[in-house]
Parts: sequence; C-alpha cells; structure tokens
Amino acid sequence: MTKVLWHLTMSLDGFIASKDHSWDWLSKVTFNPGVFDEMVATTGAILAGRRWHDRVASGVEIPPYGGAWSGPVFVLTHHPEDAAPVEGTTFLNCDVAEAVQIALAAAGGKNLEVFGADLARQCLAGGLIDEFYLHLAPVMLGSGLRLFERPGIDPVCWALQHDGDPAQAVDLRYRPVRTGQA
Amino acid sequence: MTKVLWHLTMSLDGFIASKDHSWDWLSKVTFNPGVFDEMVATTGAILAGRRWHDRVASGVEIPPYGGAWSGPVFVLTHHPEDAAPVEGTTFLNCDVAEAVQIALAAAGGKNLEVFGADLARQCLAGGLIDEFYLHLAPVMLGSGLRLFERPGIDPVCWALQHDGDPAQAVDLRYRPVRTGQA
Repeated sequence: MTKVLWHLTMSLDGFIASKDHSWDWLSKVTFNPGVFDEMVATTGAILAGRRWHDRVASGVEIPPYGGAWSGPVFVLTHHPEDAAPVEGTTFLNCDVAEAVQIALAAAGGKNLEVFGADLARQCLAGGLIDEFYLHLAPVMLGSGLRLFERPGIDPVCWALQHDGDPAQAVDLRYRPVRTGQA
Repeated sequence: MTKVLWHLTMSLDGFIASKDHSWDWLSKVTFNPGVFDEMVATTGAILAGRRWHDRVASGVEIPPYGGAWSGPVFVLTHHPEDAAPVEGTTFLNCDVAEAVQIALAAAGGKNLEVFGADLARQCLAGGLIDEFYLHLAPVMLGSGLRLFERPGIDPVCWALQHDGDPAQAVDLRYRPVRTGQA
C-alpha cells in the first residue's frame, strides 16, 4: 500500500542537521544494510522543500539516495519563478495537502517521501503523514536544525510499529566513545 | 561492576521535560515491565542537581522511583546554605568529578545514577559517564527542556551496546496516533 513517509536520520539529541545545515556528521554513523536499497526500491516520488531544492541545485546537497534513485520530485515553493530548474523536478505553488495529493498520484503506487523539516511539520499538522521512519544515530550534536520545533502545541503521540504496546518507550543503552577508543 | 549511569526518558524530538519543566507528558508513555524493578535493584546512590532537589523538597517532584528506591542522595549545589533539608540527602559544594567520586563510594558496589540535564552534561564533559540508558518515548513535545544543548562543540559519539556495529543507527518506524485512534 502506498504511504506518505517522513524518513530521516536524527542525532541522539534531536537534531537533523548541524548548525550550518550540514549533514557531514552522518559520516560518523553506519546504517543497517538493506535500508538504502529498500528505500530506493519502494519510493515512487519525493516531495521536498525549497531549501533542500536550492542545495541540490547548487550542488551542496547530493541528489536523493546519491543518484541511485530516480523518479518525479516535487518542490513546494511560493516563488517558483526564481528556482533553478532541475530535470525531473516540478515546482508546486499550492497548499501542502494539494501538493501531497499531486505527488502521491505521481508515485505510481509506491511511497511518497517527504524531505525537509519545515515541510514535514506542515504535513504532520495537516494529518498527511502515514509513517515516520527514523534512524536514530549514536551521536549528539549539541546544536543545529531541530527535528521538530513547535512551541505551544499539545504533545503529538506516535505509535511504535512493532508487536508490543505501541505507546511503549524504546530502551537503548549506549556507552560514550572516549578518545582512543573505537 | 559499578557504573555511572545517565538514565532518562526523552521525547521523540529530544526533550526531557515540557516547557514548564513538567513530566506530565510521561503519562502518555508505557515502559517495558522490569525496567523499574531493575533500576530500583541496581541503583546504589543518586547524584542530582539543585533544581531537581528543590522540586522534590517542595513536593512538585516525586522521590526517586516513586519512593520504591531508598539510598543515599547527593545534591551538587554552590549554595547548600539555602537548600531545604531532606532525609538521606547530602549537599555537596565541590567540583563535579569529586562529587561523582563521593557518590560512587557511597553506592556500595551498585550503580550511581545522575539526575538532571545540566549535571549530566557536566559529567559528560568531564568523561564521568559510563552509560547512557535512554527510554525513547513515542511522543513529540515541540518545545521544553532539551536533553543536550551545547552549541559550538564537536559531535559527541556514543556506541550502541548491542551485538552489531556500535556506530549503527537504530531504525524505528512509527505511525501517527490520529484523533479517534488508539
């Protein structure tokens, strides 16, 4: 079944990028083998924010999945007139619900992935996210771009997709990596 | 073996308390059965910050593990003279390394738990934490007291204590809990 997926890697302290919006810290993290291939195979379309687009268009950001994925990309922007064109990318100037509908229709029965913290927050507020797929990295950054910053809201509850109680916390044990240790 | 443990529950977006320093949101979370009993059994002493102490002394905060645990509690404060006395609690006015040493000696071969975000950050900076035991709650708060806020530092790496690669991210899938859904 096709889903709208919010998919990202977060630091152990709740950041998705370092202060200069860099993803360099991800070089310290390894990922489960298979996740990359799974995402390339199951993603039908991408809906992204303008900041992400500008970074890809200028070469600061790599294309989705390092170029291993190809498919329609939609960028939600109020100013499509000054956006650099990229092959396969369509600019949308509409509300977020309509953008999700358009991108989902183009996904050919596969999943729609939402890229970008601001855009994902808008989708979440509109009840448009079906799944949050998180890779929790064993790194603390101390500052940067937050996963989720919405002061004044009520707590937003999620259900863990496993066999047990969906409201249950996940228990994780870490030891610090000290200088000179692997 | 006795350890210095940083043990807490964090929201999915990196907060440990809501904006008013309340832990009320924890009522939305369930915990693995056995964690509570394990912590009560393995904790020999607690080292806490002044804010936590003031909240316990004034009745805003419940005692450690709801009163199920008993043992020596040490509170690190530069102003012990105006702290409300609590039975079993010793005030320390020294550096954090000495405080950990004193509290660990009182733990009788069991673990020392560090309470409080500021204090834990100081212990971490001093290389005094042996384990970070995290319960990741399926709730986003959007604002509040951060787990870790240290702008300008290099990334702090942790090693996941499991059989696989310690630098590997943990993969977690959540679905949103929508109104009217369990």
